[in-house]
Amino acid sequence: MTGSQRIEADYLIETAEDPRRAAEAMAGEQSSGTFISVPGETPELTARAAARVERLDLLETVATPSLPSARPDGAPAPGGYRRAHVTLSWPLDTIGPSLPNLVATVAGNLFELKQFSGLRLRDIRMPDSFADAYPGPRFGIAGTRKLAGVAQGPLIGTIVKPSVGFGPQETASLVATLCEAGIDFIKDDELQSDGPLCPFADRVKAVMRVIETQADRSGKKAMFAFNLTGDLDQMRRRHDLVLAAGGTCVMASLNAVGLVGMIELGRVSQLPIHAHRNGWGALSRAPLLGWSYTAWHKLWRLAGADHMHVNGLANKFSEPDESVIESARACLAPLFPDRPMPLMPVFSSGQTALQAPATYAALGSTDLIFAAGGGILAHPDGPGAGVTALREAWDAAVAGVPLDRHAQQHPALAGALRRFG
Amino acid sequence: MTGSQRIEADYLIETAEDPRRAAEAMAGEQSSGTFISVPGETPELTARAAARVERLDLLETVATPSLPSARPDGAPAPGGYRRAHVTLSWPLDTIGPSLPNLVATVAGNLFELKQFSGLRLRDIRMPDSFADAYPGPRFGIAGTRKLAGVAQGPLIGTIVKPSVGFGPQETASLVATLCEAGIDFIKDDELQSDGPLCPFADRVKAVMRVIETQADRSGKKAMFAFNLTGDLDQMRRRHDLVLAAGGTCVMASLNAVGLVGMIELGRVSQLPIHAHRNGWGALSRAPLLGWSYTAWHKLWRLAGADHMHVNGLANKFSEPDESVIESARACLAPLFPDRPMPLMPVFSSGQTALQAPATYAALGSTDLIFAAGGGILAHPDGPGAGVTALREAWDAAVAGVPLDRHAQQHPALAGALRRFG
Repeated sequence: MTGSQRIEADYLIETAEDPRRAAEAMAGEQSSGTFISVPGETPELTARAAARVERLDLLETVATPSLPSARPDGAPAPGGYRRAHVTLSWPLDTIGPSLPNLVATVAGNLFELKQFSGLRLRDIRMPDSFADAYPGPRFGIAGTRKLAGVAQGPLIGTIVKPSVGFGPQETASLVATLCEAGIDFIKDDELQSDGPLCPFADRVKAVMRVIETQADRSGKKAMFAFNLTGDLDQMRRRHDLVLAAGGTCVMASLNAVGLVGMIELGRVSQLPIHAHRNGWGALSRAPLLGWSYTAWHKLWRLAGADHMHVNGLANKFSEPDESVIESARACLAPLFPDRPMPLMPVFSSGQTALQAPATYAALGSTDLIFAAGGGILAHPDGPGAGVTALREAWDAAVAGVPLDRHAQQHPALAGALRRFG
Repeated sequence: MTGSQRIEADYLIETAEDPRRAAEAMAGEQSSGTFISVPGETPELTARAAARVERLDLLETVATPSLPSARPDGAPAPGGYRRAHVTLSWPLDTIGPSLPNLVATVAGNLFELKQFSGLRLRDIRMPDSFADAYPGPRFGIAGTRKLAGVAQGPLIGTIVKPSVGFGPQETASLVATLCEAGIDFIKDDELQSDGPLCPFADRVKAVMRVIETQADRSGKKAMFAFNLTGDLDQMRRRHDLVLAAGGTCVMASLNAVGLVGMIELGRVSQLPIHAHRNGWGALSRAPLLGWSYTAWHKLWRLAGADHMHVNGLANKFSEPDESVIESARACLAPLFPDRPMPLMPVFSSGQTALQAPATYAALGSTDLIFAAGGGILAHPDGPGAGVTALREAWDAAVAGVPLDRHAQQHPALAGALRRFG
């Protein structure tokens, strides 16, 4: 592998100052900067270690600051706030190929700099040595398809609902219904890991018994992502329990576990890791602050996440469709030219048969998990018809046939369109 | 220990809907909610597991949404956006005393809910069982004072600058200067952990040789916080290196390491953990999104952080002074009535002798680390006078004597006032 030996990061900035000077302040803060120059600081040393402004593209000027202004009087700057795209770079040798130190470097103090009324990390590019240090998803798309027994088309998935309140037996009984309905994938809710009301070990035992029974009967073994989120020793123990019980997937909440915990889980896991993004809104929902999904998802992908949540079209949350599609495309794009590290995007939130055509049209791929809760369980002809309707909707999408026309010959899809349309 | 068996979280919300209904949507999303009711969901089950709205206090109405509006036309809601303080509670039994699952519960999907044009977590209250599961800082204030040999007054600290570019010998030579100046505490920069330009093991060796030499000479052993941020095995190895070399502190970047990594570090560390908050701005700088420091710092404190950064008064960043003081007060407040788990707030960023009086006046405590970079090294009479001036400024602050009056008899302080005033 070859490539640059510098780390690069792209930002959207907004500033009342000269954007070039503000960009240089970013580079200074995130490398050799201090507010007063100190003994020992030489031009040679700065050249060896300093961050560089690689690129600056001016964008629009806005009248009001996106984040609270640093001006003491609180009034908007008379000249307005200029936005720009900025690319900074750092020599790899200051941190080496270390994901945690990459985060401190590209996403450290700079969000707090008073020069900026907006600062958002848009993308990160890493030297190849990061791919040597972090092997990425162990299962990815191909490994997930193999374990789930789904050679083509999306994995049709669902979520154990209600999120909390079910004990192991109630969960298993819902899983039985879903297995009989022919589901490919089921995930625990992110609110359910190992609480006294639904202990992890009991849930694994009860659920796997149902899944194995159904697999013996039909030859199809549904993939269940058990939420093992917890402290490190707990996650390890829970992973081993799932593996021993014949389970084929574990799930973790990325923002709750954090990067070092996910790297460690990625190293030990012998099962695909289903990565839940809950909490992501806090890092992303202010348009001029935080992280883009494109930049953020790269951390977890290198750490070994095999599936990552991207929300869904026409979802019940606040995210616009364009943003959802951009995230899913990021998941499917190669991470390094020689090491694509493919992972599976997971669509969810208010998904029904209705969203299949637009999702496929935007992505041109079925390498994804399409998860529906009510969209399956609330089908008028029952969960079996719910799963079938989703498969039919995706068949129609891939074939380029409008849903209503496809529904004429496919009663399950017709039922879904009546219920959710 | 006794107390409630429910977890509580306080939020600031902003919504175009009826705030009570919006609060109920939060509670639903973070417990038994789904967008279509599903088979198996019973009133008994909901009562057992559901989150509750404990309290709702209406605040002002604003004309424009703080975060992008969910309205399809993009226009502001005609009735405006109502703000409110909301308290939700959850039964402990749904997750048990688990910090990662607490995060997924109180700070999960809810930031993305389309009902809200603003949602910020203000505080978290946990049942006592969390204190049993997570013992908190092992050293805290008393342990840090003992290891640093500072019985009273703040620890006068500094930061190795420039942040990057120094090799082990250059770092050690700066440390020698600082030790001779009588410094109590020195921290690595958060951009410097184990890069090829300044390998961790070599830095520890070179720095500790200087510190031990100075300790033999003067009886005073400066505390150096070595930045061990990295993957788990790297952090463990680095911790052991520091311990074996006679070091007395390690440092980690909280947002880069994440919660599970910090919990694990807290369990194994035999040295105080200096917790750097870089990246915090991404979670906090939008006033109507993310986390308050009060809520956020509790996670790391339970996980075992002994020192936590709180920025400083009149800092070089965008944070207002009130916010800095609120954070420092949170660090000094007891975490549980029977288990206060005290930790030391760390003031830094553009700090000089000038900020000592206001900092002391606001806190009424000297249980803190007061870190200055240029504020020490750029003193006109050299670093020794820089450290002395900070001590003199704090003496004056505690005695209630104005700095300029105290400076009449204290030339180091007088020099600092001339240089930084």
